[in-house]
Amino acid sequence: MSFQKFPRHLLSIRDLSREEMLKLITRSAEIKHDYKKRFANRENVQLGGLEGQNVAMIFNKRSTRTRVSVETAVNTLGGNCMFLGKDDIQLGVNESFYDTSKVISSMVAGVVARVNKYSDVANFAQHASCPVINGLCDTFHPLQALADLLTIQEAFGTFKNLKLAWIGDANNVLHDLMIACAKAGIDTTIANPKNVEIRSDILNLVRESSKETNAKHIISHDPAAAVRDADIVVTDTWISMGQEAERQARLKQFAGFQVTEKIMQLAKPHCKFMHCMPRHPEEVSDGVFYGPNSLVFQEAENRKWTTVAALEALVVNRGNI
Amino acid sequence: MSFQKFPRHLLSIRDLSREEMLKLITRSAEIKHDYKKRFANRENVQLGGLEGQNVAMIFNKRSTRTRVSVETAVNTLGGNCMFLGKDDIQLGVNESFYDTSKVISSMVAGVVARVNKYSDVANFAQHASCPVINGLCDTFHPLQALADLLTIQEAFGTFKNLKLAWIGDANNVLHDLMIACAKAGIDTTIANPKNVEIRSDILNLVRESSKETNAKHIISHDPAAAVRDADIVVTDTWISMGQEAERQARLKQFAGFQVTEKIMQLAKPHCKFMHCMPRHPEEVSDGVFYGPNSLVFQEAENRKWTTVAALEALVVNRGNI
Amino acid sequence: MSFQKFPRHLLSIRDLSREEMLKLITRSAEIKHDYKKRFANRENVQLGGLEGQNVAMIFNKRSTRTRVSVETAVNTLGGNCMFLGKDDIQLGVNESFYDTSKVISSMVAGVVARVNKYSDVANFAQHASCPVINGLCDTFHPLQALADLLTIQEAFGTFKNLKLAWIGDANNVLHDLMIACAKAGIDTTIANPKNVEIRSDILNLVRESSKETNAKHIISHDPAAAVRDADIVVTDTWISMGQEAERQARLKQFAGFQVTEKIMQLAKPHCKFMHCMPRHPEEVSDGVFYGPNSLVFQEAENRKWTTVAALEALVVNRGNI
Repeated sequence: MSFQKFPRHLLSIRDLSREEMLKLITRSAEIKHDYKKRFANRENVQLGGLEGQNVAMIFNKRSTRTRVSVETAVNTLGGNCMFLGKDDIQLGVNESFYDTSKVISSMVAGVVARVNKYSDVANFAQHASCPVINGLCDTFHPLQALADLLTIQEAFGTFKNLKLAWIGDANNVLHDLMIACAKAGIDTTIANPKNVEIRSDILNLVRESSKETNAKHIISHDPAAAVRDADIVVTDTWISMGQEAERQARLKQFAGFQVTEKIMQLAKPHCKFMHCMPRHPEEVSDGVFYGPNSLVFQEAENRKWTTVAALEALVVNRGNI
Repeated sequence: MSFQKFPRHLLSIRDLSREEMLKLITRSAEIKHDYKKRFANRENVQLGGLEGQNVAMIFNKRSTRTRVSVETAVNTLGGNCMFLGKDDIQLGVNESFYDTSKVISSMVAGVVARVNKYSDVANFAQHASCPVINGLCDTFHPLQALADLLTIQEAFGTFKNLKLAWIGDANNVLHDLMIACAKAGIDTTIANPKNVEIRSDILNLVRESSKETNAKHIISHDPAAAVRDADIVVTDTWISMGQEAERQARLKQFAGFQVTEKIMQLAKPHCKFMHCMPRHPEEVSDGVFYGPNSLVFQEAENRKWTTVAALEALVVNRGNI
Repeated sequence: MSFQKFPRHLLSIRDLSREEMLKLITRSAEIKHDYKKRFANRENVQLGGLEGQNVAMIFNKRSTRTRVSVETAVNTLGGNCMFLGKDDIQLGVNESFYDTSKVISSMVAGVVARVNKYSDVANFAQHASCPVINGLCDTFHPLQALADLLTIQEAFGTFKNLKLAWIGDANNVLHDLMIACAKAGIDTTIANPKNVEIRSDILNLVRESSKETNAKHIISHDPAAAVRDADIVVTDTWISMGQEAERQARLKQFAGFQVTEKIMQLAKPHCKFMHCMPRHPEEVSDGVFYGPNSLVFQEAENRKWTTVAALEALVVNRGNI
């Protein structure tokens, strides 16, 4: 256990040391197992730690998975969740970030913010007197990366000697997944379409994150090459929120990047498939998405368990992981 | 207690045996009485069973009564409620029913869904790994029927030798009320306007439901005949959600169907009046609605107590009623 | 402790005797201190009293501060909060006030209503079977006045020999603040622009409220005169919700009423500044609002602690303060 200043925030997997990240995954698995055992035995499943306390969700973008996983995670810890959507509060619109951050954080135990720009959530966290967790911004998605690691650990029992292939966009989900894999020691091969480039500052973070593990990452424009010998293939939507107008152009740009049974046959036998959902047919075929090697629903459920662990670490245990 | 597969759903009163339905009413009365006694004694009123758990309300249609009764019922059991409205999640719009059902049900203890089409809630329930309760669809309204039975039992002390008259539309509320009365052994007389016909598949369900009790139902177009010797007169709005455009046509069609003091005088002395609310003046006069024999506010409050019992049976007790 | 009929409502500071108001402030300070001590010691901070119960917030107007403070206050007491916004329920629109009040109040432990007109919240409270707290209307804002008194007590340790100057509009916040000061024994000097007059019925309430304390209030159109020897300077927005169209006219009308460092220098040394937020630059300069003598963030946080005390008194303790 390392002592940390309070409040400690989680804006990206970058904010966790390798050891802390692995501890969160171990704790998530423990919480999940314990909950399911208690549920089966009809025992009280409440984990406790947040009794009488409230975690505010400040969402500028809607999301079923993040909403449901955060709200149920807070409840598991005995706390209450307050959903503040775009109609309830618009960060930086009616009131400065500074004022809103100071006021809200003085009344709640923690905040999960889902905003557009990274600078917005960072700005909010900077002035907050309570822990702030990034529930998705244009640059990072740490809660998704934690759920993905738990899902990989459940499927393979280890992070060693694994190769994860990402076929698709260079987005927020990929950023934190690459950092998480680098810290976990999972090699990654990335295939992005031409003119879709991973930001150089993110690649610097990935390199920095792989120092302890020597995990490799290879970036190309060739899906077939990327999936070769992969243990896990991952993709995500091609059209993120705000890009709907570019739909036709993006569909053309991503031609040949759909994850199909044929693509999966180039990977290792029994290669697993992951997707953070919601899913659209253009990026992955029904056969793969609903197939026997798909982990997508387990991955979605794991959003809850890793969020319980993250809230426990940051809010209940005050940043001591 | 009969063993049931888990999850067990409640989409219509049809899904309950006569014995189970009566047990739920008895339990509702017990819960209500116990709560009020504890409240009067300033004791903790929490019933427990859902500590640390969450019940999601998925509402495509707004409703004050269902919202408030479900949310407070979940709280009575010690659980938290998550309201997902049309702006939070639109079933089947951004994501398939299958995907949404699998994902949400993996993170919550139960779902109360209020959708338009019966096929939508049935579809959702089919793939859900947690119990799903129908909070109103175009065909059924089981939670209202349970509240109505509790209200009748409180008013008469029995379901025997009672005649319930329904004056008005042939809608979702009537469907489950007829099935509930058939199972409870309450005779019903229904007066619908001309060209307003009860669906034949519903009438088959009603016949099936009356096998154990031999409860009778008589359908006519004559309000005066229907209320003769009635112990309870019930009506509902003439214009359901989605029918607002047809307002003038429907007002004309329902002419003569308003429940007035004059109509009530044709029934038994002290005949009770019920209405699931919200109420409009066209279907019932002020004198009846606010009169001494009106049970409408007791009926509304009972939505809470019967929902506590339904959640306890389906979610806490895993379908063992 | 004085016995009161149940339910007892809090629609204005007017509804509290001087003794009761002072008791609420003392209790708020105690709750705040106790909570922070427990939090520091990592003990369970839940105060209890509302386990298994629900407090409904019925909001026709949005407000971050009232929303967050009420919801977290209810959670502190172990209860759940149900937010019913304009899209969930519109008081008096789809259903009469009478019907809505009877139905909702029969299912919840308490209601915090934030409506436009005082007559609306009074009407709702009249028919409610549970306590109703005014969360802001066009005439009163009792929860703000309580928070302001707690903030003053924390800053000065007493309400004796204090002078509070209000520079700005004659609005709901001022009304309850004047009544609160009159009851607490704090002298007030008010500077409103020309043609902005405090309602005579409110001034009658203020006079009535000062009988026990002989607190004085002086009303003028001169900010410089008003702040002379003040211990506390308070202002609020010049443009309340619904007045946006008159923005230019009001800015002109309020010219010279901005609270600046220059204005503050006319008051006592170390004179404190307060504002109920959200703040706009026209009514107060950055130097004052964010300056060392500003209490604005402490004042905002105190909204939570005084609301806990108010809910405890009215809902948990059934109006016995």
